[in-house]
Amino acid sequence: MEDNNVQVRVMELIENRRFSDLRKLLEDINSTDLSLLLNELSIENMILTFRLLGKDQAAETFSYMEPDLQEKLISSLTDKELKEVVDELFLDDTVDLIEEMPSNVVKRILRTIAPKERKIVNEFLNYPSDSAGSIMTNEFVDLKENMTVDEAFQKIKKIGIDKETIYTCYVLSMSRKLIGVVTAKDLLLADRDKLIKDIMDTNIISVNTLEDKEIVARTFDKYDIIVLPVVDMENRLVGIITIDDAIDVIQDENTEDFEKMAAITPTEDGYFKTSVFSHAKNRIIWLLVLMFSAMVTGGIITNYENAFAALPILVSFIPMLMGTGGNCGSQSSTLIIRGLAMEEIKTKDFLKALWKEIRIALVVGILLAVINAIRIMIQYNDMKLAVIVGITLIATVALAKSLGCVLPMLAKKLKLDPAIMAAPLITTIVDTCSVLIFFNIAVMILGI
Amino acid sequence: MEDNNVQVRVMELIENRRFSDLRKLLEDINSTDLSLLLNELSIENMILTFRLLGKDQAAETFSYMEPDLQEKLISSLTDKELKEVVDELFLDDTVDLIEEMPSNVVKRILRTIAPKERKIVNEFLNYPSDSAGSIMTNEFVDLKENMTVDEAFQKIKKIGIDKETIYTCYVLSMSRKLIGVVTAKDLLLADRDKLIKDIMDTNIISVNTLEDKEIVARTFDKYDIIVLPVVDMENRLVGIITIDDAIDVIQDENTEDFEKMAAITPTEDGYFKTSVFSHAKNRIIWLLVLMFSAMVTGGIITNYENAFAALPILVSFIPMLMGTGGNCGSQSSTLIIRGLAMEEIKTKDFLKALWKEIRIALVVGILLAVINAIRIMIQYNDMKLAVIVGITLIATVALAKSLGCVLPMLAKKLKLDPAIMAAPLITTIVDTCSVLIFFNIAVMILGI
Repeated sequence: MEDNNVQVRVMELIENRRFSDLRKLLEDINSTDLSLLLNELSIENMILTFRLLGKDQAAETFSYMEPDLQEKLISSLTDKELKEVVDELFLDDTVDLIEEMPSNVVKRILRTIAPKERKIVNEFLNYPSDSAGSIMTNEFVDLKENMTVDEAFQKIKKIGIDKETIYTCYVLSMSRKLIGVVTAKDLLLADRDKLIKDIMDTNIISVNTLEDKEIVARTFDKYDIIVLPVVDMENRLVGIITIDDAIDVIQDENTEDFEKMAAITPTEDGYFKTSVFSHAKNRIIWLLVLMFSAMVTGGIITNYENAFAALPILVSFIPMLMGTGGNCGSQSSTLIIRGLAMEEIKTKDFLKALWKEIRIALVVGILLAVINAIRIMIQYNDMKLAVIVGITLIATVALAKSLGCVLPMLAKKLKLDPAIMAAPLITTIVDTCSVLIFFNIAVMILGI
Repeated sequence: MEDNNVQVRVMELIENRRFSDLRKLLEDINSTDLSLLLNELSIENMILTFRLLGKDQAAETFSYMEPDLQEKLISSLTDKELKEVVDELFLDDTVDLIEEMPSNVVKRILRTIAPKERKIVNEFLNYPSDSAGSIMTNEFVDLKENMTVDEAFQKIKKIGIDKETIYTCYVLSMSRKLIGVVTAKDLLLADRDKLIKDIMDTNIISVNTLEDKEIVARTFDKYDIIVLPVVDMENRLVGIITIDDAIDVIQDENTEDFEKMAAITPTEDGYFKTSVFSHAKNRIIWLLVLMFSAMVTGGIITNYENAFAALPILVSFIPMLMGTGGNCGSQSSTLIIRGLAMEEIKTKDFLKALWKEIRIALVVGILLAVINAIRIMIQYNDMKLAVIVGITLIATVALAKSLGCVLPMLAKKLKLDPAIMAAPLITTIVDTCSVLIFFNIAVMILGI
């Protein structure tokens, strides 16, 4: 509600060309909200409003804007205005921007950056897209071990304004190797003439530039830290990763797992940003694989024509058996895959997890079998059919839950992503097996 | 590798009873790693090692330990030792501990807490488990607006050591209403004689104690903040939430979505902590619902006995049609559910998303139909069959993708959790529909 009120107020002020009032109003709006607000305005009004922002606020708001809006805005800015915005951006935001923009815009952006800065930007652009290097920023405060606390404060005051975080300072040797960490809290609580080397913590958690960003995110989660230093092969500090970027990685990884588990090839782009054909392409591969496997199940059914000629009602149980098997398998595989991702379940727990799933399968399977048998007795009064369906259910549930446990853990052991062993694949395998079990038991009991 | 080395070294030192060396070694180990290390030791050695830790490190390590290990440790500590640990814990960790422990242990813990503190702990315990109040802590630095920057530093130094975060200070009125925020950065960069009210930010992002913790987590993500103040109905500051707790909420919500989307009733406990019967209970409800729906599909099949008597091969296509329909529906619903959760897709985008899914469905459906038709012509050389299967595939894929888009968005609109409209439910609905479509088209084309 409140957001809408602000938006209405902004539109009114634009309409009445009361720009100094508008400027004052804008000053009080948070940059995140401002970026959302700009998104709702017409292009002309958006540019007009953006130009009223102070330098800092303009850059911060810009960094929160969606890439397509950024592109539109850039095309309306003069080179001088663009330079002002880019100058105020944090390095990691500049790198993100360059990665998102089309090449003609990139050229304009790079022209606005001073040669020395441009070299760093280019270096940052060269880190693999899933590495720690790709999400780090070079804005950190570095101290020397022989500085006093007072000198450290002087340095923070001098350079601190431009830094994304000043609360953790890094102590570097002459060759820029990372030798210690000092927090702003340590500095505040220490005497002003103490030496940095006497208060610094040498027990440092850091990652290498080439470390997988998934592991980076997990490091944040594990150690409850808000910033993580990134070092090169020689342990020289090259950048830091802040927790807001780590959260983005966590969310991206989760989205990727959701996609893989629904048989979709993951992409980095958002739902609406991805074209119809890309969507189709991301989905068709697994659909084809699963379709061919399902044809096998179909082929098996034709081998048992005798069975369903003898008892046509058998065919009507296929959807229930396949559905239940698939659902049981997807329940187990989801819990195991998530447990592995959260490191709550380890591959060494293999037998423990399997034994748990088998016991759960027996409880669930017997219950479902009994309910089905009762229903069959009431509806058809056919004991043989009740026994066939009951035994098939217990066997199918046991198999589905075992596979749901075994396959993801096997994938993990083979260094594959367990998420590919999710519902769709397991459902397809269980489908085939359940039909085989069903007809074999039927043939046995009916004596066909 | 390194972790193992440390563990071996710790065991050696215990074996040889070189406790002063052990104490020195322990000082350099991070509390998170230490909690993992203690988990690997025998109970006696764990307690022995824990007693060697300094007060701060002991409390921090304790807060990272698993509840069952905490319980074992507490039962071996004297009341005095327990008091020392609990005194050093942050309030939110104490509250978490009390929530996890059995009642006899809780009584012992509460006895060690001073009456005044105990009152606050009890208040915190009373917030609903999904509310902002349940994850906040009361350790924050509060300032008055007429203090100078210098006085603020004095206050931070005096009380700062015990606070979970000192980097964001809160300015309170006489009635403890939240009127402003000052960061340590603001303080460091300001002149020492400036007044707090001149540098404080009055544009505050805060949440109410009863706000859903999911919304709290989203607020962190949206505004890239590392700490969030929690106020009561009268806007009085009662606590703060730090980002590490927000990340835990994000991960818990993701796990909950994974579980709901796999037809599991979500629980707060971990995989191995949940008993076999609880697991079975969490899974059986949806299995029953889905089983009964699948029986409907089975019932429909029996109505078309004539069709599969005329062309028995028809039955063999059921698994492929049901499987493909289910997979298509789960692909769409997963993307839509995730998009809604990440606020990338809004309910107002309904038609836009539906139109996208329909176009994707046509691309995917036609491709699958053509591939199937070719296969049928090669294998059976039956044009009618190829047409029946082809048309059914296109219709099923279109229906599955439309439902996968419509149902989660409808749930969101009705203020239900979109995650319940995931793969299992949609698969079951699509199964029924695909069988209906298949036999109707068959009856029409075969003229039975």
